[in-house]
Amino acid sequence: MSTDPLTDVSYAEDLRVGTRYQLATYPVSVEEIIEFARRWDPQSFHIDPAAAEHSFFGGLIASGLHTMAIFQRLTVEGVYRHWAIIAGRRLRDIELIAPVRGGMVLTGAVEIEDIRPGTDRALVTTRGGLSADGQQVMESVFETYVHNRPTA
Amino acid sequence: MSTDPLTDVSYAEDLRVGTRYQLATYPVSVEEIIEFARRWDPQSFHIDPAAAEHSFFGGLIASGLHTMAIFQRLTVEGVYRHWAIIAGRRLRDIELIAPVRGGMVLTGAVEIEDIRPGTDRALVTTRGGLSADGQQVMESVFETYVHNRPTA
Repeated sequence: MSTDPLTDVSYAEDLRVGTRYQLATYPVSVEEIIEFARRWDPQSFHIDPAAAEHSFFGGLIASGLHTMAIFQRLTVEGVYRHWAIIAGRRLRDIELIAPVRGGMVLTGAVEIEDIRPGTDRALVTTRGGLSADGQQVMESVFETYVHNRPTA
Repeated sequence: MSTDPLTDVSYAEDLRVGTRYQLATYPVSVEEIIEFARRWDPQSFHIDPAAAEHSFFGGLIASGLHTMAIFQRLTVEGVYRHWAIIAGRRLRDIELIAPVRGGMVLTGAVEIEDIRPGTDRALVTTRGGLSADGQQVMESVFETYVHNRPTA
């Protein structure tokens, strides 16, 4: 990744297909799984440990939205905060591959898959995901608008 | 929608392609936009009103994740809590059509688009979205596993 040496920001022209970003780690607790899901996804297998024991997964699992929120936070910290982002445009094909449970430590990576240049911005496609102990738990493809370098 | 009269739960066999569910309403505040994004999507146009003024959208906009979380909560309350859900499998093609801002009141609908029966479960595809004042702000396609009716 190259950046503008004056601003330390990557504009669309600075990004390259194939660049891969390693994300930081994020430990997930049972308490956070329940707290997130109570607010945004109050299904019994996300919020009720006793009911979850008898569910398909045999215990509490994180909301898929929670897993995506963790991925977004790691991606903002590791990738987007260096980019001149306009906004996300589309979340394409988010696959919830394996359940996320309390005690897991999530990490992952993001790779630039496509850059479609435009007059004032590019549409940048990234593929990224999260894993725990080498087991992939989530995969996603995002399309994000990134500013072109401002003309002086 | 038909349900099991004994349990008031809809199993896969009870669901029908074309059934449409109207969702409740959800008012979005600036405070909640900032609170959600500080935790999960700390980009300046989601958390910093002054910086957001100078951004592409000319003011604070909600994280796409936040919009999706609101959609999930309305969908759990209006749809999923009546279904024998196993878990979400895939979020396909979530389009962030228009910015969501503080003061908007979101509502929406969910429709069953496809039901793929299996031996113990079906994969149910739903298409749904959110709007504010008749303007669509988000569209999505979800794939969710739903239990078949238990054999007695």
